[in-house]
Amino acid sequence: MDHVVLTGDRPTGPLHLGHYFGSLANRVRMQDEHPMYVLIADYQVITDRDRPGEIQANITDLLLDYLAVGLDPAKVTIFQHSAVPELNQLMLPFLSLVSVSELSRNPTVKDEIAHSSQAAVSGLMFTYPVHQAADILFCKGTLVPVGRDQLPHVEVTRLVARRFNERYGEVFPLPEAVMGERPLLKGLDGGKMSKSRGNAIALKATEDETAALIRKARTDADRLITFDEERRPEVANLLTLAGLCLGRKPRELADEIGDGGGLALKRLATDAVNDFLRPIRARRRELSAAGVRRVLEEGNARARERAADTLREVRDAMGF
Amino acid sequence: MDHVVLTGDRPTGPLHLGHYFGSLANRVRMQDEHPMYVLIADYQVITDRDRPGEIQANITDLLLDYLAVGLDPAKVTIFQHSAVPELNQLMLPFLSLVSVSELSRNPTVKDEIAHSSQAAVSGLMFTYPVHQAADILFCKGTLVPVGRDQLPHVEVTRLVARRFNERYGEVFPLPEAVMGERPLLKGLDGGKMSKSRGNAIALKATEDETAALIRKARTDADRLITFDEERRPEVANLLTLAGLCLGRKPRELADEIGDGGGLALKRLATDAVNDFLRPIRARRRELSAAGVRRVLEEGNARARERAADTLREVRDAMGF
Repeated sequence: MDHVVLTGDRPTGPLHLGHYFGSLANRVRMQDEHPMYVLIADYQVITDRDRPGEIQANITDLLLDYLAVGLDPAKVTIFQHSAVPELNQLMLPFLSLVSVSELSRNPTVKDEIAHSSQAAVSGLMFTYPVHQAADILFCKGTLVPVGRDQLPHVEVTRLVARRFNERYGEVFPLPEAVMGERPLLKGLDGGKMSKSRGNAIALKATEDETAALIRKARTDADRLITFDEERRPEVANLLTLAGLCLGRKPRELADEIGDGGGLALKRLATDAVNDFLRPIRARRRELSAAGVRRVLEEGNARARERAADTLREVRDAMGF
Repeated sequence: MDHVVLTGDRPTGPLHLGHYFGSLANRVRMQDEHPMYVLIADYQVITDRDRPGEIQANITDLLLDYLAVGLDPAKVTIFQHSAVPELNQLMLPFLSLVSVSELSRNPTVKDEIAHSSQAAVSGLMFTYPVHQAADILFCKGTLVPVGRDQLPHVEVTRLVARRFNERYGEVFPLPEAVMGERPLLKGLDGGKMSKSRGNAIALKATEDETAALIRKARTDADRLITFDEERRPEVANLLTLAGLCLGRKPRELADEIGDGGGLALKRLATDAVNDFLRPIRARRRELSAAGVRRVLEEGNARARERAADTLREVRDAMGF
C-alpha cells in the first residue's frame, strides 16, 4: 500500500527545539518517502482557549518555521483546517458511527476534561476524536505520527474507518499510528518544555536570546559533568540537547567537558544550539510573510480538492 | 427586522395530507411574505436508519410534492443538506459553545434516545440540536415553523446564537420558533398519520388509491353522523379531513350527511380529497424528474453561496 502521512500542529505559537527533535525532523525525513499533509489545526484552538487571539500571527510563525526547517511545499501539502470546509461534512456520517458511550470512554478526552479550565466540557471537546478522524481520513491518511497520549484518538479513527467500510463499502484505509521518538528534551528548568513556561528555545530565537535562556538553565554544584539522567536530570538534559544538535552522544560530550562545570557545559550547549539553528534561522529570515501565505493558499487549494474527491466517494458509497 | 424562514423535511417518502395541512399550506402562504429556505435533511436520515436506502428517489418525490403544492423556486430556496458542505463548518464553533451536560438534558434528544432502535446512542443523535443550529443559522433564519416536540431544538439554536454573539460579536439573529397549527389530522385508522402505517393519503396517490384508503377507514355503527371528537374520533377525523379540503366546518358537513351513515361520509370525504388534490396531482404529473433536479441544483447553489457568506462573517468575527 502507498502510504499517506497526516500530521500537524495547533497554531499556538512559534515552534521550539522540542518540536524540532520530537516531530519536525521526522517530517522532513518522511516527506521524501510519502505524500504528506500537514494540518494547521486552527479551528481546534477554540477547544482550548476562550478566544482564538493571535491565530493569524501564529499561523504565519508556524509556516515560517516549517519552511525554515526544510519542509518542501512541492512535496508536502500544508493547509489550515478552517480553509477546508468540505472536511467537516465527514463529521455527520462519522458521528453516526460512534456511540456516546464510546466517546465518553476515550481516555484522551477524559484527560483533557480533567485538565480543562472550562467549568463544563464542551461538545467540541467531547467529539474531538471524531473531528480528528475527519482530519485524518479526508486525505486517506495511513500513517499518523503521534505522541503516546494521542494513540487512543487514532483508535477512534480506525473504528470509524472500519465501521464506515463495513456499512457502505471500502472507502477508507485503516490508518496506523506511528509512535514518534519519545519526547527527549525537557525544558531548561527541568519541567516539560513549553513556550508558555519560558523554558523552551524557539527556533526563531536570536543567538543572544538562546544564550540567555541556556544561561538561566538549572544545573547543579558538581563541577564534574557526567551523564546521569536519573540523579542529574538537568545536566543530562543540557547534554542531550547539545548531543542532538551536534549529532553526538551525550556521554561523550560529558567526558570532554570533564570538570569544566556548569559554565563549560552551558557554553558548549549554547554553541551547539546556535550552530545547529544558524542555517535554519537564516532561511527563516529570507522568507517573507507574503511568500508563506502563498504557500498556505496553494496548500489549502490542494487540500480542498482532496477533500472534495473523498466527499464525492463518501456520498456515492452512502447512496446520496 | 426582516424575517427569514427556515423549514424542511427528512426525505423519508412521499408527503401526505397530514404534511399538507400541517406545514406545506403554511409554507406556501409564507413564501409570499418572507425569504424562505427549505432544507431537505438528507444526511439526517442516517440518524434514524441503518442505510440511507432510497434517498434519491425520496428526494425526487419530495421535490415533486413541493412544486405540486405551489412552492415557487423563484421565491423559495430548496436545497439538500449534503450539497452544502460549508454549512457543517459551523459545527466546530457551535459545538464549542454548548456543554455535554446541556446536550444530555435536551428533552427531544432524550426522547429520540428512548424511541431509538439503536442499542447505543450515536454521536450524531447526541449532537443533533447543534446540527439543527447550523441548519438554521447558516442562512440566518429567524422564523422556524416547528411542531411542539421540536421547541427544545430551537432553544439550543438560540443559546448557540446568543453565546456566539456575546463572545465574537453580533453575527446571528436569535430565531423564533413558530408553532405550526397542531396536527389536526389523524390517520385513517385513528392512529398517528404516517406513511409507514398505511393510514395516510399521499398527495401523489391516484383517485382510486385514495378511495380505497378511505373505504378502509374506521368509522362506527351509528348511522347518524355527528361531529364529536371525544366520543367518535374516527368519524370526526373524516369530517375534519373533508372540511379541510372543502374549506368548510366539519359540523356543517355532519349536519348535511345526517343519517347517511359511514358510507355517505366516506363518499363525501373521498370526493372532497380527490377534488382538492386534483389540481395538485395534475401539476405533479406535468413536472419531470429532470426538471425538479434542476430546481434542486439551483437551490443548492444559492444555499452554498449563502453559507459561504455566513462562514466568511463567522471567520472574520472569530479572528481567523
